[in-house]
Amino acid sequence: MDAGSIFLWELLGTSVLILLGTGVVANHVLRRTNGNGGGPLFINVGWGFAVFAGASVAAPSGAHLNPALTLSLAVADRTEWADVPVYLVAQLLGGVLGALLCWATYKLQFDDHPEPGGTLGIFATAPQIPDRLWNVVTEAVGTFVLVAFVLFSPAFRTTEGGIPDFGNSALGYAGVAFVVIVIGTSLGGPTGYAINPARDLGPRIAYAFLMPIKGKGAAQWGYSWVPVVGPIVGGVLAALLFLAYPAA
Amino acid sequence: MDAGSIFLWELLGTSVLILLGTGVVANHVLRRTNGNGGGPLFINVGWGFAVFAGASVAAPSGAHLNPALTLSLAVADRTEWADVPVYLVAQLLGGVLGALLCWATYKLQFDDHPEPGGTLGIFATAPQIPDRLWNVVTEAVGTFVLVAFVLFSPAFRTTEGGIPDFGNSALGYAGVAFVVIVIGTSLGGPTGYAINPARDLGPRIAYAFLMPIKGKGAAQWGYSWVPVVGPIVGGVLAALLFLAYPAA
Amino acid sequence: MDAGSIFLWELLGTSVLILLGTGVVANHVLRRTNGNGGGPLFINVGWGFAVFAGASVAAPSGAHLNPALTLSLAVADRTEWADVPVYLVAQLLGGVLGALLCWATYKLQFDDHPEPGGTLGIFATAPQIPDRLWNVVTEAVGTFVLVAFVLFSPAFRTTEGGIPDFGNSALGYAGVAFVVIVIGTSLGGPTGYAINPARDLGPRIAYAFLMPIKGKGAAQWGYSWVPVVGPIVGGVLAALLFLAYPAA
Amino acid sequence: MDAGSIFLWELLGTSVLILLGTGVVANHVLRRTNGNGGGPLFINVGWGFAVFAGASVAAPSGAHLNPALTLSLAVADRTEWADVPVYLVAQLLGGVLGALLCWATYKLQFDDHPEPGGTLGIFATAPQIPDRLWNVVTEAVGTFVLVAFVLFSPAFRTTEGGIPDFGNSALGYAGVAFVVIVIGTSLGGPTGYAINPARDLGPRIAYAFLMPIKGKGAAQWGYSWVPVVGPIVGGVLAALLFLAYPAA
Repeated sequence: MDAGSIFLWELLGTSVLILLGTGVVANHVLRRTNGNGGGPLFINVGWGFAVFAGASVAAPSGAHLNPALTLSLAVADRTEWADVPVYLVAQLLGGVLGALLCWATYKLQFDDHPEPGGTLGIFATAPQIPDRLWNVVTEAVGTFVLVAFVLFSPAFRTTEGGIPDFGNSALGYAGVAFVVIVIGTSLGGPTGYAINPARDLGPRIAYAFLMPIKGKGAAQWGYSWVPVVGPIVGGVLAALLFLAYPAA
Repeated sequence: MDAGSIFLWELLGTSVLILLGTGVVANHVLRRTNGNGGGPLFINVGWGFAVFAGASVAAPSGAHLNPALTLSLAVADRTEWADVPVYLVAQLLGGVLGALLCWATYKLQFDDHPEPGGTLGIFATAPQIPDRLWNVVTEAVGTFVLVAFVLFSPAFRTTEGGIPDFGNSALGYAGVAFVVIVIGTSLGGPTGYAINPARDLGPRIAYAFLMPIKGKGAAQWGYSWVPVVGPIVGGVLAALLFLAYPAA
Repeated sequence: MDAGSIFLWELLGTSVLILLGTGVVANHVLRRTNGNGGGPLFINVGWGFAVFAGASVAAPSGAHLNPALTLSLAVADRTEWADVPVYLVAQLLGGVLGALLCWATYKLQFDDHPEPGGTLGIFATAPQIPDRLWNVVTEAVGTFVLVAFVLFSPAFRTTEGGIPDFGNSALGYAGVAFVVIVIGTSLGGPTGYAINPARDLGPRIAYAFLMPIKGKGAAQWGYSWVPVVGPIVGGVLAALLFLAYPAA
Repeated sequence: MDAGSIFLWELLGTSVLILLGTGVVANHVLRRTNGNGGGPLFINVGWGFAVFAGASVAAPSGAHLNPALTLSLAVADRTEWADVPVYLVAQLLGGVLGALLCWATYKLQFDDHPEPGGTLGIFATAPQIPDRLWNVVTEAVGTFVLVAFVLFSPAFRTTEGGIPDFGNSALGYAGVAFVVIVIGTSLGGPTGYAINPARDLGPRIAYAFLMPIKGKGAAQWGYSWVPVVGPIVGGVLAALLFLAYPAA
């Protein structure tokens, strides 16, 4: 697939993913919404099906939507290294664009919110207990599970170059949704399961530089490398396992 | 497919969709029900699987069930313009009929309800914070996601004229359910995600003119154009994107 | 299929369905359980996947598990009338057996429960507001949706005699689960959605005559005909619609 | 398949299953997590999709992940007895490894927890009301449902040796997830549904001997045989039923 097409599909898919994913947190956090206080399962189900929706509209490019996944697929020899930069730039821009669409969707609620300084958490992750090493471990474990599923699940095994074939992909994307739901319920407790550098960095950039939220808080750049490094470490470990022992 | 068949399948499917969709809100809102206070996820899951059930019984006509979707499919050259009026009339009548069936199902609870003036919300959407422009934006964003899924998802790509083929449709309808769930959890906060003119207008008409609820409230006609215009704008934007860049 | 095989598969499937369905209510109602106070969605999801599990183990007989469905399939010419009595007896006995297995699973909790007189609701349905006519309407509407799904959904359309073929059935049973979940969330508010005579009558018989619960309450026989008649009326209406207008 | 491959796939799959399954309980129980107090459905959905994720990455070995299932498949002549010891050892080690990964993921939360003596429940099951006989019955009933699904569901019937073929397995694993969810909601009330000796014994061993949790509680060895014996009894009963009456 040509670079322009990869760029457009990944931009579209990641935008939809981040719009819906940050949207469920906005719905839960902001007051005067129908989902206020929806709770943990509400948020986890929202993020899971956000991935399903984003992946479904980005099938032609393989629906990576995640720099950690793209890098892992390249390490696993299932995506060409030459395409990697295009994937990454599109994913990051998609993260920015999706966050802006979320802001537009909830514009009136942001204007109305009594504590605008606490709205970063809608867009970027933060640790419940800060600790560089163990926060990285948590993000790496979650991403390992995600990438291992994509590499080893039979739903994605009939394909070339990381791009699932037509018939399997609809089912495979539902499977990814289920896996993202369980990563949320089971591994999201300590750090909010970024498990995707574009999911965290894109919206954080959008929040810091582009959103006209009066009284918005700091972007917490000191933590921002953790949801980049942790997912890459975990994803690459899954890719190395796949290289050492590919599924029969 | 002949116009009479389109009419009957769309009428059946939209009736089932609206019966179940308004039903879950009735179950949540009315007292002396088993679902009283079921909460946001309860409502979102109900609406999602309501679409699944309605679409499943309307497969022969392509299961549009939504004027915004029908118009978008026509713009995208996947439904004939000559059929559009039949779809729209059937969908609107289905919205009316489904709402009446919901009322019949909960007839005793409506009679018992201490605040009948507040029951419009079971049938029609309302903004948490009224604002013409931004409410339209929110509805447009949600419908864009829905229509983009139908147009771009591999689950619906082997078909002609917007009508999915047999084998894919069961899976495709499950996919639509997941997407409607996430639109609810993630984009439904500000306006209650009508994302379908028939879903809002049909039940609003039924409530205003046909339901024998003593002391029922006003139908809020001043807002009623928003869940018509917003979804059409969002859906047509997705169709234009599809025309500009159809999936490979 | 011979009568003995139909009997055994329907007995197995209905037992599993009723064991799991009454089990989720027991888990919600009884104290000293892990699911105490699980709430409406918890119960609706449990009943939905209870149907999935029961249907999955009864595929050879077509997994009716419901006298209203069997009668509707016979009216719709998709099951032979000669087989109907075997289906019905097996389903009713399965309802009794499943309820007894639920009691055994929660035996210690039943012994411990401070209000044994209120435990009928674990096994049999009851109206929130009693009214013969409208309770029948509610049960009929819910069962109409269930039977219409089975008759019209593409997931079940490649089959003969109401027995889905191999490949579709696993997906079809998941679809039935989704439909049962939405019937619960959306139409279960007034009467607890029996939508299946065996689901209500079998456990009611087991509770009244077979369970050794000290201080157990009355079996409320005066209501017991409603969850028999209502589902049959609704199911047969769906079958007549199917006869008048079968899916293309 | 050679013994080494069976060992590796079962080790990987069971580790992922137990990591995610114990993780959702940690998220619910520990304070300073995003899932604190997530509730019963949150936990049941987490365990269900934990099985989906674990099974998906272990497809080559048939994704048993459960000694009770392996023994039942051997009794049912669908797995070779010679392979059974390899399955069992790998599953038990996977249970230990998964629990350790869960501890690492929540390391900071364990250090912070004010009642470390009560953390056994994150890893091992316990009865709400202790009673040897009836606790075994509860575990046996739950496992009977699980193994009956695997043996009788059409999603797993086209295979040899208990190993589902490629196409069906992704759907089959989703089905197993739904069944595990309903076993949790419906039969998990009294004993916490181990339904898998490796799920209980592996993490209990890891907790007792390997986890550096200060002030951790006793491992409750007196109960530890129940979640081993109960599941085996229930699973073997399902296998005997399968032998007596295999699905057509």
